[in-house]
Amino acid sequence: MTTAKWIGTRICHILLVLCVAVAVAVAAEMPGGYRREICQYRKGRQMQPTSAYRSRLLAMREQMLIRATLEGPEIYGYILPSTDEHLNQEVATRDQRLLYLSGYTGNRAVAAVTQGGAAIWLEHRFVQQADGELDCDWQIYLAGGNVSLADWLAGQLHMNKRIGADPQLVPHHLWITWERQLADKFLKLIKINSNLVDMIWDAERPEPPKDQVIQVQTLDFAGEKWEDKVNELRRRLAHLGCDAMIVTSLTEIAYLLNIRGTDIPYTPVVKSFAIVSQEEIFFYVDHGKISLGIDLHLRTDCYNENCVKIKKYKQIWSDIRTYVQVWKRVLVPGPCVQEPGASEAIYSAVPAKNVVEHISPIIFMRAQKNSEEQEGMRMAHIRDGAAICEAMSNLETRFYTEQWTEEKIKYELELWRLSQIHAKGLSLRTVVAYGEHSALPYYISSNVTNIEVSDQSLLVIESGGQYLEGTTDVSRTFIFGEPTRDMKRAYTAVLAGILHISDLIFPASVKPSGLDSVVRAKVWHEMTDYPQATGHGIGAYGSVEEPPISVAYGQNSSFHFKQGYFFSSESGFYKRDDYGVRIKNVLEVLDTGKTTTSGEHFLAFQSVTLVPYEPKLIDGSMLSSDEKRMLNKYNAKIRKQIGDELKRLGNMKAFYWMMNKTRHIREYLPEDEYRAAMGGTCPSHAHLPLLALTLMILLAFIQIEWHP
Amino acid sequence: MTTAKWIGTRICHILLVLCVAVAVAVAAEMPGGYRREICQYRKGRQMQPTSAYRSRLLAMREQMLIRATLEGPEIYGYILPSTDEHLNQEVATRDQRLLYLSGYTGNRAVAAVTQGGAAIWLEHRFVQQADGELDCDWQIYLAGGNVSLADWLAGQLHMNKRIGADPQLVPHHLWITWERQLADKFLKLIKINSNLVDMIWDAERPEPPKDQVIQVQTLDFAGEKWEDKVNELRRRLAHLGCDAMIVTSLTEIAYLLNIRGTDIPYTPVVKSFAIVSQEEIFFYVDHGKISLGIDLHLRTDCYNENCVKIKKYKQIWSDIRTYVQVWKRVLVPGPCVQEPGASEAIYSAVPAKNVVEHISPIIFMRAQKNSEEQEGMRMAHIRDGAAICEAMSNLETRFYTEQWTEEKIKYELELWRLSQIHAKGLSLRTVVAYGEHSALPYYISSNVTNIEVSDQSLLVIESGGQYLEGTTDVSRTFIFGEPTRDMKRAYTAVLAGILHISDLIFPASVKPSGLDSVVRAKVWHEMTDYPQATGHGIGAYGSVEEPPISVAYGQNSSFHFKQGYFFSSESGFYKRDDYGVRIKNVLEVLDTGKTTTSGEHFLAFQSVTLVPYEPKLIDGSMLSSDEKRMLNKYNAKIRKQIGDELKRLGNMKAFYWMMNKTRHIREYLPEDEYRAAMGGTCPSHAHLPLLALTLMILLAFIQIEWHP
Repeated sequence: MTTAKWIGTRICHILLVLCVAVAVAVAAEMPGGYRREICQYRKGRQMQPTSAYRSRLLAMREQMLIRATLEGPEIYGYILPSTDEHLNQEVATRDQRLLYLSGYTGNRAVAAVTQGGAAIWLEHRFVQQADGELDCDWQIYLAGGNVSLADWLAGQLHMNKRIGADPQLVPHHLWITWERQLADKFLKLIKINSNLVDMIWDAERPEPPKDQVIQVQTLDFAGEKWEDKVNELRRRLAHLGCDAMIVTSLTEIAYLLNIRGTDIPYTPVVKSFAIVSQEEIFFYVDHGKISLGIDLHLRTDCYNENCVKIKKYKQIWSDIRTYVQVWKRVLVPGPCVQEPGASEAIYSAVPAKNVVEHISPIIFMRAQKNSEEQEGMRMAHIRDGAAICEAMSNLETRFYTEQWTEEKIKYELELWRLSQIHAKGLSLRTVVAYGEHSALPYYISSNVTNIEVSDQSLLVIESGGQYLEGTTDVSRTFIFGEPTRDMKRAYTAVLAGILHISDLIFPASVKPSGLDSVVRAKVWHEMTDYPQATGHGIGAYGSVEEPPISVAYGQNSSFHFKQGYFFSSESGFYKRDDYGVRIKNVLEVLDTGKTTTSGEHFLAFQSVTLVPYEPKLIDGSMLSSDEKRMLNKYNAKIRKQIGDELKRLGNMKAFYWMMNKTRHIREYLPEDEYRAAMGGTCPSHAHLPLLALTLMILLAFIQIEWHP
Repeated sequence: MTTAKWIGTRICHILLVLCVAVAVAVAAEMPGGYRREICQYRKGRQMQPTSAYRSRLLAMREQMLIRATLEGPEIYGYILPSTDEHLNQEVATRDQRLLYLSGYTGNRAVAAVTQGGAAIWLEHRFVQQADGELDCDWQIYLAGGNVSLADWLAGQLHMNKRIGADPQLVPHHLWITWERQLADKFLKLIKINSNLVDMIWDAERPEPPKDQVIQVQTLDFAGEKWEDKVNELRRRLAHLGCDAMIVTSLTEIAYLLNIRGTDIPYTPVVKSFAIVSQEEIFFYVDHGKISLGIDLHLRTDCYNENCVKIKKYKQIWSDIRTYVQVWKRVLVPGPCVQEPGASEAIYSAVPAKNVVEHISPIIFMRAQKNSEEQEGMRMAHIRDGAAICEAMSNLETRFYTEQWTEEKIKYELELWRLSQIHAKGLSLRTVVAYGEHSALPYYISSNVTNIEVSDQSLLVIESGGQYLEGTTDVSRTFIFGEPTRDMKRAYTAVLAGILHISDLIFPASVKPSGLDSVVRAKVWHEMTDYPQATGHGIGAYGSVEEPPISVAYGQNSSFHFKQGYFFSSESGFYKRDDYGVRIKNVLEVLDTGKTTTSGEHFLAFQSVTLVPYEPKLIDGSMLSSDEKRMLNKYNAKIRKQIGDELKRLGNMKAFYWMMNKTRHIREYLPEDEYRAAMGGTCPSHAHLPLLALTLMILLAFIQIEWHP
């Protein structure tokens, strides 16, 4: 090789390296994740404190190497999601592994730990909170952002290294995705069956509470015997050619067996598995939770055809192995909208040849509420509406005499809600977001982020309750002072969308995603959009987010609305670092009884949420008389139904607050419409008294003049 | 068997037979197809006339058996679609095989002939026409109805019989469907390469016209050189890893090579094939159509890099066979919304290992119009709007002095349209539908169905023109007398949808199908729906129905709107056997320049169709002031742009007609809005003059009194 040629080749190499470096820098925006100011500060001053979390992280890294001797070669990375074995987002204290390891109190997060680093992926709304809660050992990334889990791990580790994760905590479809993404980076995802956090948690780990006995959801509320539900499920399984189904979703078990529990926060379920075959029903649960009442309810004596055999929670694993000898085709739940389906552990416990991955048939049975459940949902929303009126009227009275923070308002609101009859708990983390926090969709206040609430900006409250009769989910936006013109504009655009969807009539074959534009049109017209879905299904004393309905224009959902479905419908407007508006109502799907010429049914919606809007925030000039008519109709319904409930509760302060917020507004002036039609030349009768007054004054004046 | 037992068994049998009969009657509605009254009558009286069509049918049946000796065993059924080799719905006289065989003048039909029967499948709107045109040998079925082609053939033939069809006239994906459906009935679909109708047509078949020379679409109108388009296509083919593409769609060839022709009705295209490889461009066309101008335009001399080699139309078949030796991967167009893709003949000409079935990249290049095409589309719509104003003003003047029929109005309208500058023809069969005919979506009047038009009911006109600058497509609904209240309600509901979509702003990622509910909401609210799609793309001096856009809630289209797309958007209301309303505008997609927080562009629509609505049919009380504002804005645009054009044309009658139809309507009365907001107690400034007058009268009175 000549020198000239050598130099040429070198220059080419350098240019190539430079090009690649530039390309990488452009592609990987924020390579270090969210910029943690406090850590920059500490680093500068060498002030890294040693906390319990740091020693847990070190213990974890030790476990990653110790694992090697037990289950195979060592692992160099470990992935830990915030979910539990049933893939719930909100988990029992005993299952808050991510919180134990890192101190992060939010949810919907995934962490990854290597020998040299630790990172967490979470939603935008939790970033500020995580920044306050996490040690500086942790990097923070946005879920779905520029740096994925696989990217980060590839940056931390050499090729061909092993990454571990607990297959019980990861949905099968997500496991497959991770596996592929890591393989693309020449890393290998390995199943580590004993959870590493549990190993280091050990004695400190909270025991399962002893007194959490299962409750029976009686027929008055459930509306259908569990035996009938099981028979219907078996019919559907037979239709799919399945011999058995493994039920992994806690809400599905609760629905199917008409039971409820208190094992996880916000959703009244029992931590358990179930297997329904054409002959048997197995229910895997801690025996401590079984009372005599449950024994009778589930006919565990097995004198009858339909009986539930109760087994130990852990026994499901050996049972699957045993029974797949008998069952040829086993339905393993696949993902369906919000429902992640079975975990990788469950999925891989069944031999591949026996697996039928399919959306759980229970989802569709449950979504169409029976008449008792429908009645219950309406009742729950009346109780809930009254609770909010009580809380807000109380707050408004005390607003200027006390100091209020997001957390204090949250506490007050939860207190009022839980004091209602049949209230069993909350259905979601209460959102109380003031000012710039309200501009973060679904911001959750915490000790770290809590701010004072004054009368200058908007206050978004999103909350819901669990009642024996049903589950509620509502958002309202308030202001204690006077709103700006822009705030009113934003609020009215959001409100118009909610009014329109509540009034909509549509053929049953229209996809939920196809209705999204009806809600968003006015918000879009303000050249803004909100990131979250417009709607999702809701359970009856079940989960606040229930498949299969999803109203979101980006999603290709293939499930349609049916009479008896309930779903929550929201709209929002978020002005970054300034304020946000969110309104959310639960709607019920009704059959109008009318059909199209091709025989398709026309469906309609009806709002079951009955909570006043904020009249101060409504810009009447932006609403058509049609929209005002819808608003008045809704307000009249609140005055009647919530009014009755508040009177029954004897809370007249709340009653008058509610009456004041739901006052009838003028839809249009009939005489003016008439004049408009006549071209504006006809005098209005409304001005006759004024004319008479003028005349009288004049006459009086004349008389005075006249007198002398 | 005892007598009692025998009777019991008999009764059981009879009951069973009855049950089955009822079940069959319910399941197979209309097993004999559409009830042809005239045939019932003739049959009763043995009055079957012998027509030319009957002898053609007999000749055809003979051919089905003769075929046996030439291409294999005989066939017992033959399927004949109304399309041509390029799968056009409107075909040249020479290709109207179905018309020759049966006498049916409509389109979008498929016929099947067996030794014992003949049947035709067509859309609902053509049934009445077909009933009048077809011999009683023919049964009529609805496309997509209860009896499919395969069902009918299975009912006519024994198992394992062979059914023939011409693979040149059937899209590949439809061939596959038929093949599967027939296989399910134990019948076999066979390719018959020589078309049987052509065999019997023979000498009678019209020759291709001699004078149809190809025209060049100059750069002023096309906006982009064909060489640049071919280069862009090659880039896209390379991206798909394809060595060549067979272009089978005539509109795609016309767009790609900047040529236009008159070979088929309503669409200005040249009957030809094209193959574009990375090195060469082959253009298969009758040499008689090539003039010197075209030679120069397409650089057929091949002195340049980019040159088009002209070959004989039929040579494509041997060329494919030759060149697939060289080309490893050949793109064969797949279906895309309205575009059926390549025919079975083309598809199977390429060896399976070389086929890349993919949506033609030309579709996406063409859909986004360049600035010359955009300007041209707007110009074409101004000319077209003026033509309709001229035609309708003329019609309104002469309405009560002459007798009018659907066909006569159609003739007049077409005359006015074709007399415009740069008008090159019509873009679709003109729909003039009066009264109950207007209640049939897309009814096409014909000599058979033509009725008198009076002033009692609604008249729906849907029509479009081909101009050098662009293609138009518009629907309007008229009434010459006074409408009923219900008609106004229907019209206003339809109009509101069109106003709303024209005013819509939305993020670019929203699917077209997701916007359908914005158009239909008000129509749905009247508990009615229309069967056709709300929108489809439209070409620039091309096809009136152009992929990839389709706005229809039932369709799962995955193509999004982009700036520069044009599409037609319609809404309708059809009251069976009474009247119908349809309004259709062509809209242009604009970029607002604004983005969402995630950086997505907000798009907006703008109506390029400028034809007045019928003010007599608008119920102002159903429109919000916002909707009235949109209507006034649209009317102002018509007054300006169409007004200028009509003045230029010197047609003042049409000008005043247009001015009268587009008068400004009152949106709302500002002072009343103000009063409404103030609770009605504030005096209105509008009444000050009245007060002043009263005062003056009083003062005058006082002075009079004072004087003595």
